[in-house]
Amino acid sequence: MRLPLAAPIHDLALAEQLSRAINNKTKPIGSLGALESLALQLGLIQKTVDVRISCPAILVFAADHGVVAEGVSAYPQSVTWQMVENFLAGGAAINVFARQNGCALHIVDAGVNHEFSARDGLVDRKVAFGTENFAKAPAMTAVQCEAAISHGIALVDGLDGNVIGFGEMGIGNTTAAAALMHKLTGIPVADCVGAGTGLAAEGIAHKRSVIEAAVARHDGVREPLDILATFGGFEIAMMAGAMLRAAERRMVILVDGFIVTSALLVAARLQPSILDYCVFSHCSNERGHQRMLAQLDARPLLNLDLRLGEGTGCALALPLLASAANFLREMATFDSAQVSQQGE
Amino acid sequence: MRLPLAAPIHDLALAEQLSRAINNKTKPIGSLGALESLALQLGLIQKTVDVRISCPAILVFAADHGVVAEGVSAYPQSVTWQMVENFLAGGAAINVFARQNGCALHIVDAGVNHEFSARDGLVDRKVAFGTENFAKAPAMTAVQCEAAISHGIALVDGLDGNVIGFGEMGIGNTTAAAALMHKLTGIPVADCVGAGTGLAAEGIAHKRSVIEAAVARHDGVREPLDILATFGGFEIAMMAGAMLRAAERRMVILVDGFIVTSALLVAARLQPSILDYCVFSHCSNERGHQRMLAQLDARPLLNLDLRLGEGTGCALALPLLASAANFLREMATFDSAQVSQQGE
Repeated sequence: MRLPLAAPIHDLALAEQLSRAINNKTKPIGSLGALESLALQLGLIQKTVDVRISCPAILVFAADHGVVAEGVSAYPQSVTWQMVENFLAGGAAINVFARQNGCALHIVDAGVNHEFSARDGLVDRKVAFGTENFAKAPAMTAVQCEAAISHGIALVDGLDGNVIGFGEMGIGNTTAAAALMHKLTGIPVADCVGAGTGLAAEGIAHKRSVIEAAVARHDGVREPLDILATFGGFEIAMMAGAMLRAAERRMVILVDGFIVTSALLVAARLQPSILDYCVFSHCSNERGHQRMLAQLDARPLLNLDLRLGEGTGCALALPLLASAANFLREMATFDSAQVSQQGE
Repeated sequence: MRLPLAAPIHDLALAEQLSRAINNKTKPIGSLGALESLALQLGLIQKTVDVRISCPAILVFAADHGVVAEGVSAYPQSVTWQMVENFLAGGAAINVFARQNGCALHIVDAGVNHEFSARDGLVDRKVAFGTENFAKAPAMTAVQCEAAISHGIALVDGLDGNVIGFGEMGIGNTTAAAALMHKLTGIPVADCVGAGTGLAAEGIAHKRSVIEAAVARHDGVREPLDILATFGGFEIAMMAGAMLRAAERRMVILVDGFIVTSALLVAARLQPSILDYCVFSHCSNERGHQRMLAQLDARPLLNLDLRLGEGTGCALALPLLASAANFLREMATFDSAQVSQQGE
């Protein structure tokens, strides 16, 4: 499989031009804080000082996980397809926030264990009816993993906008994401495992032991794609593929919480320059996400103790992305507004 | 002067009804984090589960400060009126963010040291052409202080919406705000003073010594209104008055950064229950703001290292306020969406 290539965004001349433009705006230097760094990053991604956010879209990838047979989630597996129906009916949190912030929403069946009736709004890319239970066997075959990645790549080719946000739904997928995190970062399993949708301490301890046993069973797995196939989910693999292609197309990648970031861990191991294109929407309340972000040297825009997934962090952070672009495009300069500068 | 009264928002029955409504939404309990607490607060303020954000307005109060004669700012005093012109022309950061997020913007001359030509969009409530230099004399007279507060009260009576955001512009006003912070909280001056619009270490040390000398000079001042008159600014006094009336009218008060929070410190000393109505938009990068917020037991929505003022934090946080209202009003419940609950 040929994977997409992401070019680094470094461009010293443009970076200087952007910094000058940002510093000439009528405000004390640096006073827009994280929005200034964001504006710089957007300019470098878009190769212009005329930064614009156009037609942002959030893709929510849904899939099921065989590992739920081990009792790792507070909710039954059927919630995955029920929530997909909820997305399609417009009643979930991501629907509310995407509507509010003018963001297109695409719901992708990456591998839900349910036969959906075909309909507008549901993108059918089902690889299988859920993964295998990685406590007993690899979650997917190499062929399935490649299929998921390829679907992700192709989905991004169908988008018109320059911002893509990632969301997911899949009962059991914090277990998959925690296993990926451990394998890709070396952080102990205990620090990767959290409450997910709402486990108590006993449930978290059980989830940890399931992952530790699985990691021991699949001890020889070392390469990122093998790790993905062994412990991942179809939604995670599809997101990794979509992220790689989005970076190749120089789109802004809006990263959501724990599971989306686990997909990014895989993608960034394959293609480190993808990180240049990432905006981290929020720090999740799911234990492990903070360390994941630290590992990526990422500073999230929001810290609201969200732990819902679905891409809700992306939808909530989107106005800040627009604000970064807008101040750069619309604010007056000291000259144009005839405002005195520091020390004048 | 009769000050407005703010009723506490406590209502156990309504709080239970709101919590039930929030927990019945199709999401793990608590998974919307800070937005859930915010939805609860909005419901208690508005006395309903049918929470709505209507016609939000940001008022930017501008005034000048005699204490700039002591050399406490990196910018000349003329920047205050120049920035007011910039607001009126639509070129400042607050214009960009208010436009983007559908927020009305009112620019109030509370006491700028400049003769503006009358025009649409400029609300003339000028108390005087700047305060006195509090290093030598009280910043304002008791009569001026009352006038500023009364104007603030009256301005809020002219608003239709249920959310008011506060912004300010005034070269020298971090010096006033730091003095107020010290007098109202007892926190040492050294921990209240910061870089403002951009002082280096030497400038900050000088600003500190100016404040410490002024505090010693006006040693007997103890009552909140006396403290306000002695060290405050016309914009700060007008904001304090507007906040008191906004709480009486059960409006949501969006608090911006260091200077706006100093006005709130005054208002909250006069009327502690005003805090029930406050949403803290962000933690400023201005040294001292974090401790101010801690003093108020406030948790800000955004942490973006902003230090611009103008109400920019309020405008940027407004979409999150709308998100809290929207998820409560628009999300499906487990029953309505036929989604299984935890443990089912």
